[in-house]
Amino acid sequence: MKNNYSVLFFLFSLFLVSGQEHTHRSSRPLTFPDIPNYITVKTDLHMHTVFSDGNVWPNIRVQEALRDNLDVISLTEHLEYQPHSEDIPHPDRNRSYEIALQEAKDHDLLIVHGSEITRSAPMGHNNAVFIEDANPILQEKAENAFKEANKQGAYVFWNHPAWYAQSPKGTPIMSDFQKSLVEKGQLHGIEVINSLDYAEESLALALEYNLTIMGTSDVHGLIDWDYTEKGNHRPITLVFAKEKTLPSIKEALFAGRTVAIYNDLLVGREAYLVPLIQNSVKVNSVKYIKDSYVLEVVLENLSSSDLIFENATEYSFYSKPAIFTLKAGTSETLLIKTLESMEEMTLKLKALGAYIAPRKNPIISWNLSASE
Amino acid sequence: MKNNYSVLFFLFSLFLVSGQEHTHRSSRPLTFPDIPNYITVKTDLHMHTVFSDGNVWPNIRVQEALRDNLDVISLTEHLEYQPHSEDIPHPDRNRSYEIALQEAKDHDLLIVHGSEITRSAPMGHNNAVFIEDANPILQEKAENAFKEANKQGAYVFWNHPAWYAQSPKGTPIMSDFQKSLVEKGQLHGIEVINSLDYAEESLALALEYNLTIMGTSDVHGLIDWDYTEKGNHRPITLVFAKEKTLPSIKEALFAGRTVAIYNDLLVGREAYLVPLIQNSVKVNSVKYIKDSYVLEVVLENLSSSDLIFENATEYSFYSKPAIFTLKAGTSETLLIKTLESMEEMTLKLKALGAYIAPRKNPIISWNLSASE
Amino acid sequence: MKNNYSVLFFLFSLFLVSGQEHTHRSSRPLTFPDIPNYITVKTDLHMHTVFSDGNVWPNIRVQEALRDNLDVISLTEHLEYQPHSEDIPHPDRNRSYEIALQEAKDHDLLIVHGSEITRSAPMGHNNAVFIEDANPILQEKAENAFKEANKQGAYVFWNHPAWYAQSPKGTPIMSDFQKSLVEKGQLHGIEVINSLDYAEESLALALEYNLTIMGTSDVHGLIDWDYTEKGNHRPITLVFAKEKTLPSIKEALFAGRTVAIYNDLLVGREAYLVPLIQNSVKVNSVKYIKDSYVLEVVLENLSSSDLIFENATEYSFYSKPAIFTLKAGTSETLLIKTLESMEEMTLKLKALGAYIAPRKNPIISWNLSASE
Amino acid sequence: MKNNYSVLFFLFSLFLVSGQEHTHRSSRPLTFPDIPNYITVKTDLHMHTVFSDGNVWPNIRVQEALRDNLDVISLTEHLEYQPHSEDIPHPDRNRSYEIALQEAKDHDLLIVHGSEITRSAPMGHNNAVFIEDANPILQEKAENAFKEANKQGAYVFWNHPAWYAQSPKGTPIMSDFQKSLVEKGQLHGIEVINSLDYAEESLALALEYNLTIMGTSDVHGLIDWDYTEKGNHRPITLVFAKEKTLPSIKEALFAGRTVAIYNDLLVGREAYLVPLIQNSVKVNSVKYIKDSYVLEVVLENLSSSDLIFENATEYSFYSKPAIFTLKAGTSETLLIKTLESMEEMTLKLKALGAYIAPRKNPIISWNLSASE
Repeated sequence: MKNNYSVLFFLFSLFLVSGQEHTHRSSRPLTFPDIPNYITVKTDLHMHTVFSDGNVWPNIRVQEALRDNLDVISLTEHLEYQPHSEDIPHPDRNRSYEIALQEAKDHDLLIVHGSEITRSAPMGHNNAVFIEDANPILQEKAENAFKEANKQGAYVFWNHPAWYAQSPKGTPIMSDFQKSLVEKGQLHGIEVINSLDYAEESLALALEYNLTIMGTSDVHGLIDWDYTEKGNHRPITLVFAKEKTLPSIKEALFAGRTVAIYNDLLVGREAYLVPLIQNSVKVNSVKYIKDSYVLEVVLENLSSSDLIFENATEYSFYSKPAIFTLKAGTSETLLIKTLESMEEMTLKLKALGAYIAPRKNPIISWNLSASE
Repeated sequence: MKNNYSVLFFLFSLFLVSGQEHTHRSSRPLTFPDIPNYITVKTDLHMHTVFSDGNVWPNIRVQEALRDNLDVISLTEHLEYQPHSEDIPHPDRNRSYEIALQEAKDHDLLIVHGSEITRSAPMGHNNAVFIEDANPILQEKAENAFKEANKQGAYVFWNHPAWYAQSPKGTPIMSDFQKSLVEKGQLHGIEVINSLDYAEESLALALEYNLTIMGTSDVHGLIDWDYTEKGNHRPITLVFAKEKTLPSIKEALFAGRTVAIYNDLLVGREAYLVPLIQNSVKVNSVKYIKDSYVLEVVLENLSSSDLIFENATEYSFYSKPAIFTLKAGTSETLLIKTLESMEEMTLKLKALGAYIAPRKNPIISWNLSASE
Repeated sequence: MKNNYSVLFFLFSLFLVSGQEHTHRSSRPLTFPDIPNYITVKTDLHMHTVFSDGNVWPNIRVQEALRDNLDVISLTEHLEYQPHSEDIPHPDRNRSYEIALQEAKDHDLLIVHGSEITRSAPMGHNNAVFIEDANPILQEKAENAFKEANKQGAYVFWNHPAWYAQSPKGTPIMSDFQKSLVEKGQLHGIEVINSLDYAEESLALALEYNLTIMGTSDVHGLIDWDYTEKGNHRPITLVFAKEKTLPSIKEALFAGRTVAIYNDLLVGREAYLVPLIQNSVKVNSVKYIKDSYVLEVVLENLSSSDLIFENATEYSFYSKPAIFTLKAGTSETLLIKTLESMEEMTLKLKALGAYIAPRKNPIISWNLSASE
Repeated sequence: MKNNYSVLFFLFSLFLVSGQEHTHRSSRPLTFPDIPNYITVKTDLHMHTVFSDGNVWPNIRVQEALRDNLDVISLTEHLEYQPHSEDIPHPDRNRSYEIALQEAKDHDLLIVHGSEITRSAPMGHNNAVFIEDANPILQEKAENAFKEANKQGAYVFWNHPAWYAQSPKGTPIMSDFQKSLVEKGQLHGIEVINSLDYAEESLALALEYNLTIMGTSDVHGLIDWDYTEKGNHRPITLVFAKEKTLPSIKEALFAGRTVAIYNDLLVGREAYLVPLIQNSVKVNSVKYIKDSYVLEVVLENLSSSDLIFENATEYSFYSKPAIFTLKAGTSETLLIKTLESMEEMTLKLKALGAYIAPRKNPIISWNLSASE
C-alpha cells in the first residue's frame, strides 16, 4: 500500500529536484568484492509488479536487475493488497514468480520465490522469501500467515519498521506481536534501509533482537526513475554465502551474514562490514617519495560505493585533509607523513559512511609494506 | 621551482583518471513551434502495454509521455494478439484506455481511444484511433474489423508497411486489400517512420494514395531503454490542428496535416514541413561586420530536432562550409559574403534532414533586413 | 596581428554561446556568501607567469581569474629565480604586475602588487603582497628583503612550509629565522593549503603564532590543466573585508580574517569559518509531514563547495545517515524525527570538511521554526 | 507481435553501442588513418607564442600538441610584429623554435622551424616553414623576405587570404604580388581554413594556381579556450608523406599531398581526400537479415571527424534516411534494401562534409561481399 500515499510522492519530487544537477547514465552496475570464506551475493528481495501494486510486468524487473548487475531478486507481491484485481483476477499468487523465472532462465540471475504479508500496525508489512507456495500464506489471521510461511521454511523479515505512515514518530515500535514472532523464531530479519529511508533505530533493533540486517528497493515504478536517473543506486542487501546457490544464500540470511547498502551508506554487523570494506580497497603501491619521509600509498576502490574515510592513524597526510572520499571505481593517492622511514605500517581509516551500530563507524586496517 | 618535481606530475595524472565522470539527461522534452493558422500538437499514436504484448501498466505510458512533453497519446493494444491473456483474461478491450484516461486526468495530456487490428500479410498491422468501443472491432474477418472501426468514425493508418518480417524486401507492398480500403475511404494514414525504421517507399505511397504521413514509437518496453538512454527521442507525429482538442486533432489527421519526426529526420508534405522549419529557426540578429561586406546573421533553432542545412543562396559563407548543422535549442552565427552592402536579402537553406518526397529536401527561405 | 581585432573576439564570443549546449564548462565560477559585518572576497595571491618560472603571459592569469569568478589576484614572481632571463632580461621586477593591471582595467578584478622572496631552507619561500616596488626587495640577504617589503607596508606570508622538498618530513619547521620574523612583526601569514597540499601542522603554526591562514594555487602552467579539467577548483583564500577595496582587503589580511578553501576543504579560524558555513546553507522550508512527528527541512547550499555534515543533534534522521553531503549549489531535504511536535528547534551539524584546528571540525547551528 | 523478433533486438543493441557518447573530455586526440602509399601526418603549421603576439611560452604549445595527438607543429612568430619587444627584446628570431625543440625532445612530436612574414594587403600574411634561420628573413622589402625564405628552401604559404580585415568582401584577392610569387615558384600553399574560417574561394585559388591546400589554428591564446572547451578540434593539415620525417613531410607539402580539416569539414584534392575517407570507414560486417533481402552493413568511423554521408546508390535504406552521420569513433548499421540477394555490391556514399572543389562533394565507394 505504501506507494499510494501522496506525501511520499511529494518527497520523491523534492528528491528529484535536489538531485537533478548531478544526473548521469541511466544504469550503473553494482560491484562488491568477496570476503574471506564467503562469496558476496548482491540481492534485492523486495519489489512489486502489476501482480500487486507495481506498474510493470515481471520481465522488466528481471531486466532492471541484469542492468544493475544483481545476483538475486525476489518479487514480493502483496498477498492481500491487489489493486489490479479487476484486470488480473488470477487466484494463483505464484504467477509473478513463475513469469520472472521464465524470463531469467537464460541469464545469470537467481529468482527467489517470495510474498509480502501485509497488515496495518502493529503487525505491519513483512516479506516471506524462499517460500514454496504463496497461496496458502494468504490467511485471515496474520499469525497463521507467518506460521504457514515458516512451515514452508521461509526466511521472514520486517519491512520498513520506521515508516511514519504506520509509526508517526518515524521510529520502529517493537510490538508484542513482533516480539512473539521473534520468540517463536518466525521473524528473522529487519529492513534498516527501505527505498530512500534509513533508520538507525531499526539497526538498534536488529542488534538487540539478533535479526538479520536488510536493505531493499521496495520498487513499484521504474528503478531508473526512482534511482538511476538521480545518480543513485537502488538499496540492496549483500549476502555473504558459501556458494552462489539459493540454499546457500538462504543459509547465510538465517545466519545473519549481510550488509545493507544504499549508495555510500553501508550498514552491517562488524564481522562482515569490516572485511567488506577491507577487500573493497586495494593497496596498489606503497613507497617513499625520494629524499623524504612522505609515504605514498595508492588506494583503489573496487566497489561501486563511494567510501568516505577519516584518518585514524597518529600520522597526518601531506596533501589531503583527515577526511576524504575514495570514489567508486577510482584510485586516490595518500601521502602519509610517517616522520621516519618505516618498512611496515598499519593504515587505519574510520569508514564514515559505514555503520556497525547507530552512529558507530568501524575502523578498518591495512598492512602496508614499503617497496624500494 | 615547485612545479619541476616529476612526482607531482605523477599525482596530477592519477587525479585526472579519478575525476572522469560523464553524465547525460535521461529524458529530453520535445518542442516544436506552431505554424501559421495551426497549433502544432505532438502525438504518439502507437504503443502497447500489458493489455496486449507490452511490458508496463498503462500509467507508465502516461508518465513517459509527460516526460517527453507530448500532447496526445493512444494505447493501441493488439485486439487479436493477447500473450498475457492467461493472467489478464478480461474480455473488455477498452481497459487500457480507461486506465490511461484515469492516470492522465490531472495532467495536460489527451488520451485517444485506439486499437490495433493485427493480421499477417497482405493485410498487415493497422491502427484505428478515435474509436468509441474496441470490443466490436475484434472480428474474424479483417474487412469487418475495418468496417466497424470506420463505422465508429475512426482514423485508420497502416503500421510499418515496410517491415521486412512481413515484406522481405523491406519495401511496402500495396495489396489489393489495401487498395480497396483506400478506395472505400477506410484507410487514411500510413506510417513512414515506425520505431527505428524510416521507409522512403512508404512516403512515396503516402503521396501517391493521399494518405496521412505518420511516425510512431510502437513501444513495447520502456521509452527510456529504447530511445532516451541512447540519446534519441521517440518517433512522433506532429499534427497541425485548429485547436488543441480531440475533435480538432482528428480533423487534422483526416486532412493530412502532419509531419513525422525521428530525431533530426523530418518527413511531411511540403505545405506543412516548410513552415514548420521556417518557424523553428528564429533570426535573432542581422548586421554587417564593421568595414566589411560580410553579413552576420544569428540563427536560433527553437525546436528539439537538430537541423542540417545546405547553403542554397548564390553567396558563400565566411566561416562555415556550405553544409552545417544548427543543433536543437542552440544558436549559430552565419557570416554571409554578400559582396556588396544589401539592406535586404533572402536566406535560402536546403533542409537536408527533411523530406517532402523520397530523397527530396525542401528549400526554406527567410527574409533578412540588415540593422545598423 | 590577427588577434588584435576586437571584432574577431566578438565572433569568438558568439561562437562560445552557440557551442555551450554540447560541452561542459571547463571552469566553474567560485561563489561564497558574505558573513555578518564583512564582505567575502575571493583571492588567489600566489601565482607565476613567464616573468619568473611560469608558462603564460600575465593576461592569461587575468582571464583565468575572471573565469573562476575571483575578486583579487596577485602575480608573485620569484625575484631571485628567473629561468627565462635569457629571453626576458628586463631589470624591472614590476612588469608582470603592470601588464596584469592593464589587462584587468575593464573588468571587476583587483590586482595586488606582489613578489616572491625565494630562498632555500630554513628561510624558504615567502610572498610579499601589497608592495609598492618589487625591485628594492631583491636583496642579497634574506633579512633585508623582508625588511624592505615591510618598509613598503607589505603583507608577508610563508609559502608551502610543509613542502617535502624543503622539509623531508613534510611538516613545517619553524626556524629561528621565521621566529624572529614573527617577533619583529615582519611575517603575517602562512599557507595551510598550497596547490594540492594541505598541512594540518601549518594550521597548528598559524594558530600558535597568530598568523593569517592562507590558501593559494601557486600556479605555473594552466589553471584548466592543473585543476578545472580534473573537476577541481583552484585553492583560494576568502578574505572578510569591510569593503571590496585593496586597502580594506589588506586590513583584513593583517587582522587574520580569512578562510582557506580547496574544493570541499575549508580551513579557518572559528570566528570566520562558522558564520561562512552558516550563511552558505539557506533553510528553505521547515514543516512537519502530515500526521507525523517527522520534521521536513529543506537545506540549500549557496556556496561552490560541497559541504559534508554529520548530525550533531540528539535526534536521528528519517531518510539519511548521520553523515551526508550537501553538494554545491543544490538542495537536500532532511527529515528529522523530533519525536514530539516542536515549534522551534536548533539544527546542529558538524562540518566534516571544515577545520578550525588540526582534526577539529566546527559545529554549526541553525534555528528552525516550523510553519503550518 | 513485432517486438518478438530477436533480430530487432540485435539491431537495438548495435544502436546502443553506437550511441554511447555522453560528455566530452576537455581534450580530444586527433586520429586519421594512413592512405595507400603514404603515412598520414597530422600538422598545425601556424601558431604564436609570447615571442610575437601570442600569450604562452613555447612549451605550452608543445604540450597542447601532445594532448591533441599531433605529429608536427611549427611556431610561426611574426618577424615584424613584436608587441612584447619591451620585455622580450631578443634580436634572435629563432628562440621560439629552439625552446620548443628542447621541450619536445623526449616526445614523439616534430618541430618545424618557421616564421611569419607579415605585411598589409596586397602582400598580406604568409608563413615560411622548413627554414634554416629566421633572422635574415626579416627584411625591409617583402620581395626580399620571400626570396631569402626560398633561398633557405622554405615551403611558403599564404595565410587567411579571405580575412575581411584585409579584404572587406571576405574573398581572397590574388594580387600581382601573389601572382608573381607563384610564377617565380616562391609561394607554394594557401590556407583554405584558418582558425574558424573556411573560404571556398581560397579553395578555388588553390586549384587554379596549383597551390597546396592548408588548414591551421593560427592560435594566439589557449587551444582549450579557442577550440576544445566548445567541443571543437583545432584546424589541422593532414600531410601524406612517404615517411614520418621532416624531409619527407616537406616533400609532401611541395607535392600538394594534403587535406585541411576542421571538425567535420574536410577539404582537399580528390586524389587524397577520397582514399582518406575510404580508409576512415571500416566495413565490419556484411550479411543479409534472415529471410529477407535487407543487407546489414556495419560501418565504423576510425577517424576523429564526424562523417556526414548521403546515399549515392540506387537502393534505399531500411532504417535511416538517405543522409546520415557516422560519428567519430563509432559504428552505425546500414540496412540496404538490395531487392534481390546479391553476393557483391558497391556501396557509394557522397561525403557531404568533404569538398574537392567549391560546393563539390566526392563520392566514396566500398566493395561489399555478403557473408553467410
